[in-house]
Amino acid sequence: MQGVTLTDIAEDEDVAARTGATVYVCVTCRRPGDSEDTPRPGLALARATAKAAEGTGVSVCQVECLANCSRSLSAAMRCDGAWTYVFGGLSPERDAAALIEGARLLARAEDGLLPWRGRPEVLKRGLIARVPPTDFANGNSKEETE
Amino acid sequence: MQGVTLTDIAEDEDVAARTGATVYVCVTCRRPGDSEDTPRPGLALARATAKAAEGTGVSVCQVECLANCSRSLSAAMRCDGAWTYVFGGLSPERDAAALIEGARLLARAEDGLLPWRGRPEVLKRGLIARVPPTDFANGNSKEETE
Repeated sequence: MQGVTLTDIAEDEDVAARTGATVYVCVTCRRPGDSEDTPRPGLALARATAKAAEGTGVSVCQVECLANCSRSLSAAMRCDGAWTYVFGGLSPERDAAALIEGARLLARAEDGLLPWRGRPEVLKRGLIARVPPTDFANGNSKEETE
Repeated sequence: MQGVTLTDIAEDEDVAARTGATVYVCVTCRRPGDSEDTPRPGLALARATAKAAEGTGVSVCQVECLANCSRSLSAAMRCDGAWTYVFGGLSPERDAAALIEGARLLARAEDGLLPWRGRPEVLKRGLIARVPPTDFANGNSKEETE
């Protein structure tokens, strides 16, 4: 639609319907010492994140393994045309809202990069990796952090 | 095309033209103690990987930061319809061919998962994280490792 920028679109309520903003939460990881029948903290985080996503338009998917086992709990987020981010060291009691806030920031980011300033603290210290979008060409990135 | 499976397609030479198999190499990271004017080992890895990709159909992109700085050197790989993988602890002298071999394995993987068996060793011990493809729905994954 002529004259409508990404920023305008993202200011609407339903971000995900336009941008595919999705948070993936690993439901497999356990904490050291947890027995087999202890409820998985990753599942608790996934459920809390799904609840935090209600009404935001962000999708939440449960994943069986993000292969970040040594630095769990783990989650990732993506958005059409944006970079994909992986986070670790998450807490099921504390970090669901931060994941959804991060996904909404990513959906609004005109350059496709999750902004450092204003990013929830756990998405700074828990950053594991980021990967460019599919239309990435050499050189159109900038280093992580401020 | 009726009767043509992903495996058939991937056995052709030009994998990337059909699948978008791409390796992203971080060119920013330095080793501890490297001076500002030391050539970046990430750049050497990117160049070696591009050379290893010649004739394979795999694309190689230089990226300024994959945010895996504490476990560098870093690279990622993706492919249409497949999971995205991030690797660390790579060596510019040793690992270019392994990255291309991994990308080709990923392009041939019918389930979109980089197979554990037959995967180059550095892509096992250097695995940092993996993220589902965009069409991922809850539950259609399996845990990493054999």
